[in-house]
Amino acid sequence: MPPNIRNATINDLPSIVSMLADDFLGQQREDLAHPISANYVNAFREIENDPNNELIVAELDGKVIGTLQLTFTPSLSYQGSKRCTVESVRVDSSLRGKGIGREMMLWAIERAKETGCIAMQLTSHSDRKEAHRFYEQLGFLRSHVGMKLSLK
Amino acid sequence: MPPNIRNATINDLPSIVSMLADDFLGQQREDLAHPISANYVNAFREIENDPNNELIVAELDGKVIGTLQLTFTPSLSYQGSKRCTVESVRVDSSLRGKGIGREMMLWAIERAKETGCIAMQLTSHSDRKEAHRFYEQLGFLRSHVGMKLSLK
Repeated sequence: MPPNIRNATINDLPSIVSMLADDFLGQQREDLAHPISANYVNAFREIENDPNNELIVAELDGKVIGTLQLTFTPSLSYQGSKRCTVESVRVDSSLRGKGIGREMMLWAIERAKETGCIAMQLTSHSDRKEAHRFYEQLGFLRSHVGMKLSLK
Repeated sequence: MPPNIRNATINDLPSIVSMLADDFLGQQREDLAHPISANYVNAFREIENDPNNELIVAELDGKVIGTLQLTFTPSLSYQGSKRCTVESVRVDSSLRGKGIGREMMLWAIERAKETGCIAMQLTSHSDRKEAHRFYEQLGFLRSHVGMKLSLK
């Protein structure tokens, strides 16, 4: 059965944070304290109140098992075209390899088209080799270098 | 003399579009018709009305000679931290190599810190080798792969 894909609500927040933390890069940077840290709640509200950001979850049998975030960016380049950036893509580690991530990304691509975006873009850590293949299978091209500067 | 760096106004739009077009990748994708295409005006207004997007110009002797766009993205990851994405960085081709791009980026980094961002990120086309060195000199790490999917 395909997952149900929808906008996240505040009740999904603990499941989303667990998925962000359950990852070789994420485990060092997230906080799994209960009750959930106010930083996550505040960030959730900021995303929710921003019409150019959408936090998405995938649900299976009433359980949240996937997440991603879409950012729509108005831009002058390409004759004033909007782009969609996808970030924080995660699938529950016990359910990987079953096509759930693919379903989520196909949904996200349709959403970006519907919003009038000319392109979808993402960066993926150089060590996430499987992720690169996953995105290539969806038609993404590795045309760019992704660079980051820590501001901490 | 260092350039004056400030938010763009609608009057800067023709200069900005010229710089986007004056580029080995941009020349095929921009429209330099006069008067300027309504698509650019509409995109400018969208950026202007979005509190999470800032279109910046650098000015020297009253002439616009550089541009970049900042996008502030609220996010759950890194314990609910905001990131700053920089896109469409251009310096007038007759004035490159004089440190103007560096001034602009240092300004942008301060702006991102001031806005509470944990990191600054960008993608640069794999063919823009000089740009990669430029960003590395500013402290950016080439830690990610940048992937794009055309939705046209």
